[in-house]
Amino acid sequence: MAVDTEAGGSDAASGETVTASIIGGSGFVGGELLRLLASHPNVEIVEVTSRSKAGKSVGSVHPPLRGTDLRFTEPDDPASVDVLFAATPHGVSMSQIDDFFDVADTVVDLSADFRLNTEAQYEEWYDGHDAPEYLQKAEYALPEINRENLEGAELVAGGGCNATATILGLYPLVEAGIVDGDQQIVVDVKVGSSEGGAGGGDASSHPERSGVVRPYAPTGHRHEAEIEQFLDTSVAFTCHAVDMVRGASATSHVFPSGPVSKGDLWKAYRGAYEDEPFVRMAAGGSGVYRYPEPKAVAGTNVAEVGFELDPTNKRVVVFSAIDNMMKGSAGQAIHAANIALGFEETAGLEFTGLHPVGAP
Amino acid sequence: MAVDTEAGGSDAASGETVTASIIGGSGFVGGELLRLLASHPNVEIVEVTSRSKAGKSVGSVHPPLRGTDLRFTEPDDPASVDVLFAATPHGVSMSQIDDFFDVADTVVDLSADFRLNTEAQYEEWYDGHDAPEYLQKAEYALPEINRENLEGAELVAGGGCNATATILGLYPLVEAGIVDGDQQIVVDVKVGSSEGGAGGGDASSHPERSGVVRPYAPTGHRHEAEIEQFLDTSVAFTCHAVDMVRGASATSHVFPSGPVSKGDLWKAYRGAYEDEPFVRMAAGGSGVYRYPEPKAVAGTNVAEVGFELDPTNKRVVVFSAIDNMMKGSAGQAIHAANIALGFEETAGLEFTGLHPVGAP
Amino acid sequence: MAVDTEAGGSDAASGETVTASIIGGSGFVGGELLRLLASHPNVEIVEVTSRSKAGKSVGSVHPPLRGTDLRFTEPDDPASVDVLFAATPHGVSMSQIDDFFDVADTVVDLSADFRLNTEAQYEEWYDGHDAPEYLQKAEYALPEINRENLEGAELVAGGGCNATATILGLYPLVEAGIVDGDQQIVVDVKVGSSEGGAGGGDASSHPERSGVVRPYAPTGHRHEAEIEQFLDTSVAFTCHAVDMVRGASATSHVFPSGPVSKGDLWKAYRGAYEDEPFVRMAAGGSGVYRYPEPKAVAGTNVAEVGFELDPTNKRVVVFSAIDNMMKGSAGQAIHAANIALGFEETAGLEFTGLHPVGAP
Amino acid sequence: MAVDTEAGGSDAASGETVTASIIGGSGFVGGELLRLLASHPNVEIVEVTSRSKAGKSVGSVHPPLRGTDLRFTEPDDPASVDVLFAATPHGVSMSQIDDFFDVADTVVDLSADFRLNTEAQYEEWYDGHDAPEYLQKAEYALPEINRENLEGAELVAGGGCNATATILGLYPLVEAGIVDGDQQIVVDVKVGSSEGGAGGGDASSHPERSGVVRPYAPTGHRHEAEIEQFLDTSVAFTCHAVDMVRGASATSHVFPSGPVSKGDLWKAYRGAYEDEPFVRMAAGGSGVYRYPEPKAVAGTNVAEVGFELDPTNKRVVVFSAIDNMMKGSAGQAIHAANIALGFEETAGLEFTGLHPVGAP
Repeated sequence: MAVDTEAGGSDAASGETVTASIIGGSGFVGGELLRLLASHPNVEIVEVTSRSKAGKSVGSVHPPLRGTDLRFTEPDDPASVDVLFAATPHGVSMSQIDDFFDVADTVVDLSADFRLNTEAQYEEWYDGHDAPEYLQKAEYALPEINRENLEGAELVAGGGCNATATILGLYPLVEAGIVDGDQQIVVDVKVGSSEGGAGGGDASSHPERSGVVRPYAPTGHRHEAEIEQFLDTSVAFTCHAVDMVRGASATSHVFPSGPVSKGDLWKAYRGAYEDEPFVRMAAGGSGVYRYPEPKAVAGTNVAEVGFELDPTNKRVVVFSAIDNMMKGSAGQAIHAANIALGFEETAGLEFTGLHPVGAP
Repeated sequence: MAVDTEAGGSDAASGETVTASIIGGSGFVGGELLRLLASHPNVEIVEVTSRSKAGKSVGSVHPPLRGTDLRFTEPDDPASVDVLFAATPHGVSMSQIDDFFDVADTVVDLSADFRLNTEAQYEEWYDGHDAPEYLQKAEYALPEINRENLEGAELVAGGGCNATATILGLYPLVEAGIVDGDQQIVVDVKVGSSEGGAGGGDASSHPERSGVVRPYAPTGHRHEAEIEQFLDTSVAFTCHAVDMVRGASATSHVFPSGPVSKGDLWKAYRGAYEDEPFVRMAAGGSGVYRYPEPKAVAGTNVAEVGFELDPTNKRVVVFSAIDNMMKGSAGQAIHAANIALGFEETAGLEFTGLHPVGAP
Repeated sequence: MAVDTEAGGSDAASGETVTASIIGGSGFVGGELLRLLASHPNVEIVEVTSRSKAGKSVGSVHPPLRGTDLRFTEPDDPASVDVLFAATPHGVSMSQIDDFFDVADTVVDLSADFRLNTEAQYEEWYDGHDAPEYLQKAEYALPEINRENLEGAELVAGGGCNATATILGLYPLVEAGIVDGDQQIVVDVKVGSSEGGAGGGDASSHPERSGVVRPYAPTGHRHEAEIEQFLDTSVAFTCHAVDMVRGASATSHVFPSGPVSKGDLWKAYRGAYEDEPFVRMAAGGSGVYRYPEPKAVAGTNVAEVGFELDPTNKRVVVFSAIDNMMKGSAGQAIHAANIALGFEETAGLEFTGLHPVGAP
Repeated sequence: MAVDTEAGGSDAASGETVTASIIGGSGFVGGELLRLLASHPNVEIVEVTSRSKAGKSVGSVHPPLRGTDLRFTEPDDPASVDVLFAATPHGVSMSQIDDFFDVADTVVDLSADFRLNTEAQYEEWYDGHDAPEYLQKAEYALPEINRENLEGAELVAGGGCNATATILGLYPLVEAGIVDGDQQIVVDVKVGSSEGGAGGGDASSHPERSGVVRPYAPTGHRHEAEIEQFLDTSVAFTCHAVDMVRGASATSHVFPSGPVSKGDLWKAYRGAYEDEPFVRMAAGGSGVYRYPEPKAVAGTNVAEVGFELDPTNKRVVVFSAIDNMMKGSAGQAIHAANIALGFEETAGLEFTGLHPVGAP
């Protein structure tokens, strides 16, 4: 595999191809990985597993892949590959991580299993951890805050979608010292139904889920842990389900200790993101789309970030919008894998989105 | 008219009928008033005006009223009535208020023209006021916080929909002293497209508005003025347009100065609302609908209110959901008019809503 | 019970109250019955059964009923009542019909179990029938075509929603001889997700069901049997799922053998429906709503019916729109029960709908 | 330009780049062209005109293009280019076609101005024609039925979206002689709101347009002319607006004169489409997506086509689904231009769609 050779990165960038497998390919995230990797210039998919759909064509589950030859296989005897993507439910990867590394040089995990740094965090926020020895080795998949560590990484841990949206909105304020861990920050997130995955019970049936503004996880959302880990500040975090399928939008209310101007804010955001291929500023202006919106980034790996300054109550309102399936999951994972494997960062992630589009 | 006679209230309650007119009946709010008053046991509609639709049947604009004989008339020579409902754009009522009282004993205004108490507030938040002498006379239409003053009121001022949702959520905390004006309160509101009214430009066209989570009025929303006037506390207020037609949902994040228990919260809310005919608590429990949702109150005059306590960051998260056309506008106005005129409070407002329902 | 006494009908109309139970009250149709009967002036609900939700409050499942005291009970020992409404899955009522009549004088069944006239039809379209001796006794619940037989009926069989929409659109053409059984009629129906009921699998999950135009039952839909039974003509029938929760819209393409004018059509429809309380014509005119639309009747028992004449291809296009939960199910059942029990036809069904409203 | 040289086609395919302009770039179709051409390997956009948005960046109108340098220019002094795409309202291109050819070698028109073959058709279905001498020169942009004539074409006429969906569904039956012009064919089309374009009045405002099943153009739809021109058969055509932004779905009911088997149908469709890069069959099978659905092709240039055979009424039900902005407009135009200019047919059109996705 590219990153194991001396000249890895550059070779790869100039056209090398790696073999890849997807563990858990019948869910929404697995399907998104499939879709992206199928047209990735440096990746050859050699296996897609799904216990429930083994034997079926991938197109029978994911309509955009109709006509593809690939079929789901049983996950019991995984193929040897350069890179393995795990799109399995929380808890699976931590229990199989040794097996994954037996067959792959690089593992990209899209569950929550390796996002947090310490076993203690998993004790507090989840149900503990089966393989804590891997936690320090894992690199968080968000290049905007962790690019240097992703180069050559062997274990990549995909971020949570809501955490990703929030972190991308607040990170420049932390870097610029406008957020310093002492203020109260309120984060209100709106998410689409694809976050619930392909199964779902009564609450996610169309008659019950259609048209909602439904609070869920009003307190104690697990993504708080990630946000606090990377921003060194606590947040008061609440989610609402709204009527879209793809998309996560985070509105963060920040009350800086000292005076802040619009110029300070622009400087902070431009400084953080002007060279980033997948962050786009949207902060005011004219027209219909003035601030970040999930619609505007649906299907893309782009995060839109913007802000407004409220002089009355000395508040900075930060908006960030992503496609939870892309920048919030599969797209982020491939972006990180591209860096880990030495490919072009944007390889396979060039789609720029649609306008107009309905509830994406 | 009932309230002008000695025995007014009780007579009315026992079956008296008043005559009513609607000024500006072709918009969404005017249509909602029409719909409600058409089946109100104590009201006879004698006139509905609309400059743009004069001569047309009300059913040609408002489909549920197909088959009704009523037609829109020019507004220039208004009929004498007991009660006049004004559903005109902001600024119209303040300029015509003397004319309204020339033909009606009671005026119920559904615009923003008489919501605030002082001319200074109108200078700060709007473009000043044409008839400031009426401001002290006007009674805010929200019975839950102003019932006693509404009895016999001659000028009723409908509240703003977003303000109504927010006030109903926070009022019990203010009454109980849990909110005392010193804390930072963040309010994040999600609203449907009917708030924009029947016209609307590019931004409210279906292709652009469908499926959005779109920040608007991120700072400086005029409803802040109402909220602060009635709750004696400032709020940091931000709105988002989401994909529904009817509905407003307010999530308020409150950080009490001292310790608060769930029991304290239940006591505050029960104390404020247990006898209210149009407030319903939804705070946890099992099933799909655990917290307030606009879907659950669509078409009704009910406000759902609920809360959750976040022990980690000492936060109370308050949820409130209304139908912006009903409790946030026409329903609230009729509720207030029922009190002003001495009718049963719930007259004409008995509809209990639908389940399931889509984007209401 | 009213209909068993000499003076039944008139007594009832003047205020008599009957006792009622709902068998299967936790589904969508059961909830709709509950909602309607709870405010019906002549009905007292004494029991609502649900095996899966026994012990829970009805409001925990159906949000508009929050605050109601009623709780679901086990269905094993049903109460004696005047009228029993069965909202159970297909096949249950036919197997329990004797039990139902043991405890009730009148049975209103909302499943498909008693819609067809003969055992042979059930052999052809369903899986046969357990109680064929009741088939001739059952009266189809659609008053517009069967009012006289519903008076005093002891077993009322609710019609299928798609069949109801189609029959109401075509019936006047049959009555007027414009449809005579020899022409090919094509019926294209669009339905909301509530038709699938409260459970539903992958296909009805929000991510998969949202935004669809999805053919289902493209051929061989069971409602063809009902349509042909009542209209004496065969139809070529195809359904599509579209993005709404409530609503069924039928577009029927008819090719009359001889020349037909618009005047002939108006005469046919006016003749059939001008005295009907729950049928409303919408056939052209100006404004946004020119033809029948599910949105315009959402939450009501109204069927909108309209047509257009295509001189080029000698086609009559007939549009009919209903709320599948109301005129297509619970509303129709109560309308029929009102007639069977001698109440005002419109009792409990007065709601006139909302404007604007989103996906209903 | 490629097509003017001897070796045009092959040279172009091996990497030649042409210059292109878009006349009318601020509408939905213009934006879609921009989006596609911006990442087309063989096209350099040199000008995008818009009278109303001249001077503004293209990203201020079309969010996916934020960050692009391109700005709208006044249309008065068009640049010389190899290929000019006209995305102007009906009637504009026919009046400016000489001007277009003054500055461009190839003109691709996306309006209705050159779709029909004769002036007589424009007299019958539109308001006549200003430049009838071009009608015979224009080539219909649908490669599946007109590929050979598109090679080297100088004037390409984009098809109507509803006509495209219908033609692609029925064409194989015509080719196979199963449809021969004698049978009655009923076509029922469901379309999204983007068909109405970026402006739109009351009927396309979100509150009125949301959640609809709304008949429009129930008879006499102009696309009938195109369908009949290319299929040599008349159709009874009716459209319905449904709640999506992108997408057109045509259900065609065909009654063949003689017996037809499923095998005959498969043979007809496979024969017509097995080598087509942008037609995909979906006819039965298991899973959620069994027949063509607009969701499954949203954002792509793919048409899904499928069918079902109804033995009872000897009917073939044909389903076809496209993205009206892509295969129904801009995608089709670029596909045709690729052929006209000798590029790879799929160049710039490789996006395969999203799953899951909401109302596309």
